[in-house]
Amino acid sequence: MRGKVAVIGVGMIRFGELFEKSLENMIQEAYLNCLKNVDMGIDPKEIKAAWFGQWSGGFIGQGAQSGHSLTSMIGNRNIPCTRLENACPTGGDTFRHACLGVASGLYDVVLALGAEKMRDKPSAESLGGAGGGGGAETGNHPAWMIGQGGPAIQAMHATRQMHELGYTMEDYARVAVKNHHNGTFCPYAHYQFEITMERVLNSPVICWPLHLFDCCPQTDGAAAAIVCRADLAKKYSSKPVYVIGSNVGTDHHQLWDRNSFIEQQSTVKAALGAFEMAGIKPKDVDFAELHDCFTNTELMNIEDVGFVRKGEAAKRLSDGEFDLNGRLPINPSGGLKAHGHPIAATGLGQIFEVVTQLRGEADKRQVKLKNGIGLQQNVGGPAFGVCAVNILSRSL
Amino acid sequence: MRGKVAVIGVGMIRFGELFEKSLENMIQEAYLNCLKNVDMGIDPKEIKAAWFGQWSGGFIGQGAQSGHSLTSMIGNRNIPCTRLENACPTGGDTFRHACLGVASGLYDVVLALGAEKMRDKPSAESLGGAGGGGGAETGNHPAWMIGQGGPAIQAMHATRQMHELGYTMEDYARVAVKNHHNGTFCPYAHYQFEITMERVLNSPVICWPLHLFDCCPQTDGAAAAIVCRADLAKKYSSKPVYVIGSNVGTDHHQLWDRNSFIEQQSTVKAALGAFEMAGIKPKDVDFAELHDCFTNTELMNIEDVGFVRKGEAAKRLSDGEFDLNGRLPINPSGGLKAHGHPIAATGLGQIFEVVTQLRGEADKRQVKLKNGIGLQQNVGGPAFGVCAVNILSRSL
Repeated sequence: MRGKVAVIGVGMIRFGELFEKSLENMIQEAYLNCLKNVDMGIDPKEIKAAWFGQWSGGFIGQGAQSGHSLTSMIGNRNIPCTRLENACPTGGDTFRHACLGVASGLYDVVLALGAEKMRDKPSAESLGGAGGGGGAETGNHPAWMIGQGGPAIQAMHATRQMHELGYTMEDYARVAVKNHHNGTFCPYAHYQFEITMERVLNSPVICWPLHLFDCCPQTDGAAAAIVCRADLAKKYSSKPVYVIGSNVGTDHHQLWDRNSFIEQQSTVKAALGAFEMAGIKPKDVDFAELHDCFTNTELMNIEDVGFVRKGEAAKRLSDGEFDLNGRLPINPSGGLKAHGHPIAATGLGQIFEVVTQLRGEADKRQVKLKNGIGLQQNVGGPAFGVCAVNILSRSL
Repeated sequence: MRGKVAVIGVGMIRFGELFEKSLENMIQEAYLNCLKNVDMGIDPKEIKAAWFGQWSGGFIGQGAQSGHSLTSMIGNRNIPCTRLENACPTGGDTFRHACLGVASGLYDVVLALGAEKMRDKPSAESLGGAGGGGGAETGNHPAWMIGQGGPAIQAMHATRQMHELGYTMEDYARVAVKNHHNGTFCPYAHYQFEITMERVLNSPVICWPLHLFDCCPQTDGAAAAIVCRADLAKKYSSKPVYVIGSNVGTDHHQLWDRNSFIEQQSTVKAALGAFEMAGIKPKDVDFAELHDCFTNTELMNIEDVGFVRKGEAAKRLSDGEFDLNGRLPINPSGGLKAHGHPIAATGLGQIFEVVTQLRGEADKRQVKLKNGIGLQQNVGGPAFGVCAVNILSRSL
């Protein structure tokens, strides 16, 4: 990027089934938490542009959620604000757009905020059918029954991983156990309870070979980040975190065009571009928040981002390499599996976790930092053909 | 903007009721026209990122239209692509994002494309109800009957303009007559026929004081622009056009919060910022494409952009100042009124017109150029609280 970019504040609300909160409640709470997180203080009027991640606004009767609905809700009218929708990577891409805005030289300080109300809707209006692929990550709506939605698509990936790579349902279950364990340490996680291998494997099959506990929940939530010019960052934050790589990758929109079900080219391309921009290799990354909408997806993402070779993720997982205290902790927040997946908020929740970890503020779930570099990844959309990757660092 | 930006190609399809064309057909046709318009040639693979304007994707059963649906359709997979939705200004804001992308230094050549299928849907699924304000600019769906949608909201503005500024239904009709006249010269316009004052004033009242011919039609369409680094522009185009100002303004999301019905702060703020960026004044602009979703809106926009003082637009219109051969031609393309309003394509259709005029290629509707500067403006969304303005110039 022409202009260097830093994160000076992050904020989120505890993800969950938030029937008692409106979209506006969630947004305002996340926004205020984000302002408070700018430890040397910020006047909200210093925020000169905003990007609003919102996936379901159009689909399920919430009405248009164009940019000015956000600026109205946060009481910062008149600034430019644009609503983005890029399927499950909406959150990660909303963050990327805030970075582009600062890098362009047009704005010194900007806001990225994503929010999603997933649980207020009756099943018939729910997400899987409308979304045509992403977003259908639970068993409580009818989309999967007719073979549509996220579980059906990811089950095809999971069977193919079993066939080509020798992965097993136990391998998938192990992801769930790890991420639920991490979630118990995260006060923002939707699920904060341990599960066992037995509980995963004995839970109902949603779409074979995926069990209920292989699927992330449907979650309400909101999360935000304030991004500014790197050279101004220390005015606002005693611990700024720098954005060294940011990219989106795309692939076929239709499943029948895909060449592989054990690899997602959208992730491969997004990660390659982000690493190139950052001038680092996957081995330089200390930890990552990856898009585990399903347990098998985490294994695929670990490989597609380039952390291990294709087919190695399951073994490395069972060796403990991706545990909180392992070589490369994956999803210290609990991941989508335990942290939750409020679509447009998900990526910004991951950014929250990466920033919190890089600042050394993650309490009982704090990972060890060597290079001070963390990575965020979202993948989704019809045929899982779009992916966002952001790489953050304690130093420029 | 830190990096200077140029338009090297524009393309669109003839707007209209395109029942015979799918969204994909329209997109591919506009994209290919855009590539052909780059007169010194371009390899499509040189396009390194894209922004996809799509408003109704979520609403009306078209499924998610996330970024990779565009890159799949144009056969340029793997590049970053994001879907934007910012109500009626979606097209103008999609163009702005392409400019931000180039200005950020991340991409040398990018695509902005907007497309909308408005006419394939039954009335019950149509746009006004879902949109809660924008998009309901015709009489053929039920939203206005229950007092919702664009006509009802703009009628409140129109009555207030009559009350505070002394505007009349004849003043509004005169906008329609002018824009239909311009549309007869534009091969891309939805409506290419003249209308008379009598025909407007005798047409059915949609929402008093607005008649059928005060409302723009519901239109299918697609339009695109290729944007690149200004210093590379002459490699691709013998007549590059430069982007000197680009902004979005926002205002209250709810009508009841507004202080005025004769002014839209979203437009006022968007225009002020764009003029400041461009370092010019409204008087320096040779012609403009303004958002005449309703005839009274054009008058309001002429004032809000700053071309004339509040309350002067109607008189200046009747003096012929905004005619094709007047001092400041407004909507030489025919405007939304005759050119059409396929929401996310509208702003890019305006960019097409501005670039075509600035190149001197607008044939019978060519306006006189003095400073070689044209302006594009979109406004809309709930309470018309979001506006995009882009200012283009023949020179940097």
